[in-house]
Amino acid sequence: MPHSDSTRPTPVSVLGLGLMGQALARAFLRAGHPTTVWNRTPAKAEPLTAVGAARAETAAAAVAASPLVVVCVTDHDALREVLEPLGRAVDGRVLVYLGSGTASGARETAAWAAAHGAAYLDGGIMATPPAIGTEEALVVYSGPREVFDRQEPVLRVLAGTTTHLGADHGLSSRYEAAVLSLMWNVLNGFLHGAALLTASGVDARSFAPVAARSLEMVTGWLGGFAEQIDDGAFPGEDATLTTHLAAMEHLVRESEDLGVDARLPRFIRDIARRSVAAGRGDESYAVLIDQFRTSAGADR
Amino acid sequence: MPHSDSTRPTPVSVLGLGLMGQALARAFLRAGHPTTVWNRTPAKAEPLTAVGAARAETAAAAVAASPLVVVCVTDHDALREVLEPLGRAVDGRVLVYLGSGTASGARETAAWAAAHGAAYLDGGIMATPPAIGTEEALVVYSGPREVFDRQEPVLRVLAGTTTHLGADHGLSSRYEAAVLSLMWNVLNGFLHGAALLTASGVDARSFAPVAARSLEMVTGWLGGFAEQIDDGAFPGEDATLTTHLAAMEHLVRESEDLGVDARLPRFIRDIARRSVAAGRGDESYAVLIDQFRTSAGADR
Ligand SMILES: NC(=O)c1ccc[n+]([C@@H]2O[C@H](COP(=O)([O-])OP(=O)(O)OC[C@H]3O[C@@H](n4cnc5c(N)ncnc54)[C@H](OP(=O)(O)O)[C@@H]3O)[C@@H](O)[C@H]2O)c1
Ligand SMILES: NC(=O)c1ccc[n+]([C@@H]2O[C@H](COP(=O)([O-])OP(=O)(O)OC[C@H]3O[C@@H](n4cnc5c(N)ncnc54)[C@H](OP(=O)(O)O)[C@@H]3O)[C@@H](O)[C@H]2O)c1
Repeated sequence: MPHSDSTRPTPVSVLGLGLMGQALARAFLRAGHPTTVWNRTPAKAEPLTAVGAARAETAAAAVAASPLVVVCVTDHDALREVLEPLGRAVDGRVLVYLGSGTASGARETAAWAAAHGAAYLDGGIMATPPAIGTEEALVVYSGPREVFDRQEPVLRVLAGTTTHLGADHGLSSRYEAAVLSLMWNVLNGFLHGAALLTASGVDARSFAPVAARSLEMVTGWLGGFAEQIDDGAFPGEDATLTTHLAAMEHLVRESEDLGVDARLPRFIRDIARRSVAAGRGDESYAVLIDQFRTSAGADR
Repeated sequence: MPHSDSTRPTPVSVLGLGLMGQALARAFLRAGHPTTVWNRTPAKAEPLTAVGAARAETAAAAVAASPLVVVCVTDHDALREVLEPLGRAVDGRVLVYLGSGTASGARETAAWAAAHGAAYLDGGIMATPPAIGTEEALVVYSGPREVFDRQEPVLRVLAGTTTHLGADHGLSSRYEAAVLSLMWNVLNGFLHGAALLTASGVDARSFAPVAARSLEMVTGWLGGFAEQIDDGAFPGEDATLTTHLAAMEHLVRESEDLGVDARLPRFIRDIARRSVAAGRGDESYAVLIDQFRTSAGADR
């Protein structure tokens, strides 16, 4: 990342050097930012000091070293375990949390930061470590717009797309939760499909390209389904829920025949059955949103 | 589709004119194949006769009209309800079933066809009706290779990719089941994500592009996970199951906090918990394949 002669790259500290924290620190270093690193288990700093990072002996020293402090640990509890003992040492710092968490955790951290004089952004990384610093990566942020705007030139080195979602610190966790839910459901669908096929003598390598192509196809439907959800109208133009349901019965049967776990197929079928029984059989798949919007399903 | 002067396009009959059958008949018509159509509810033939299809009064007449008979009804039971009364009228015909079904249903239909002198291919459509006849569509077939090879030039008009999977008639259903499982799990993940975000005041239209991008990202992982599955080795290089599990707990919590259905998040978390408890926490997500490969999970 080029810097004009008049601007010195902002110093950055990275606290938390797991798989993701390592990748974040490397991206800052590659972009020429003086980077100080700290990790609870000190050995993880070594590969980074070898490529130019300064190692802080303590979290307090790491926070003291840079105006921008990026934290990437397991969750908000871990973040507070690291930062709370430092108290007002964070005064005047910009804290950016890039690990996972809940919206309420983000808001609590924001309140703690405010009480200790720090500006705070909560972030959500939609990428794996190798994608950090590449076009592919997406990182979303929530918190005060002006704080984001000031830090954006630095944060941009982490991802091809850097987006501010809104002032509510909880927003990035909500987006992260939505994306993670999608991601794990995709992966479980892939694993279940691979289990069906490998039980039929077809290897997973043969399934992968077909699965990739199907994902591309489904990706093309999301915009239309999103409009149906926002508009509350679900015309079953391409395939009706009744047609889906008939094929879902096959999936349950096929899974049982092959001795493959049938819990996801049964879940898939049962929610469709309930909507068809409620008279929504001629509508599109997206009509099932109503069942995800209530926790009542669990008790019925 | 161009035809040399010396070849007359093969006549085709399409039985079953639901949303998908209509699209199949239109694709044959567009490619210049003399197309005869039949549907249990006769009115559905009308839009097709308006664009050049011949309408058969009975299924028997439709089968008599063409050497290639494509059937697209709800399932194999419906297929046999249509064809069994015709008995040996199918003698010498090539039957292609393009509706959904199970592998055992496909094998039973194949046996019935063989006993009545018909050649049989079982197909699986990985596309929606509007995609039929376009590059986007993928249709897979199973059954005797030579039968497929002879019909391939005609079948190719239905889809950009037309693939023969093998001689076992059950294979296309197995692929279809695997792809449908993936597809429904993706859609459920999207609906669950949309439920989380709309409960947070973010509309589904804003989620769709982020979801699309995430699907692209996950698509890129499938090849690597497939290799891990086939090789039985699951190095957790980018993210460990333990890291996933911590974020899964957030997803369950976030879903519960928002009053959104938490059954999928709990399923996701519970299978990861079980694998972590079994000592697989340092491995990759794909190590969960073992849990999909057994139906034991349902009973524990
Ligand atoms: N990996 C990915 O693909 C990915 C993608 C998006 C988001 N994320 C999120 O990023 C965060 C980190 O993920 P990761 O893959 O880097 O996980 P990881 O390799 O397990 O690293 C976890 C990090 O958190 C630190 N930590 C945990 N509890 C702590 C505590 N109480 N006090 C101090 N430090 C503590 C660990 O320190 P020690 O080394 O001392 O244990 C380590 O640095 C997670 O929230 C994860 O969900 C990861
Ligand atoms: N739509 C899609 O996106 C899609 C994608 C891939 C695969 N498929 C599969 O293609 C097949 C058809 O789907 P579709 O969307 O066309 O469904 P559809 O619109 O509901 O049409 C069902 C068709 O099956 C006929 N049928 C059902 N039971 C019958 C019986 N006992 N005897 C005679 N005809 C019977 C119906 O005749 P009537 O008109 O008389 O009821 C109608 O022609 C299904 O197996 C579906 O899973 C569909």
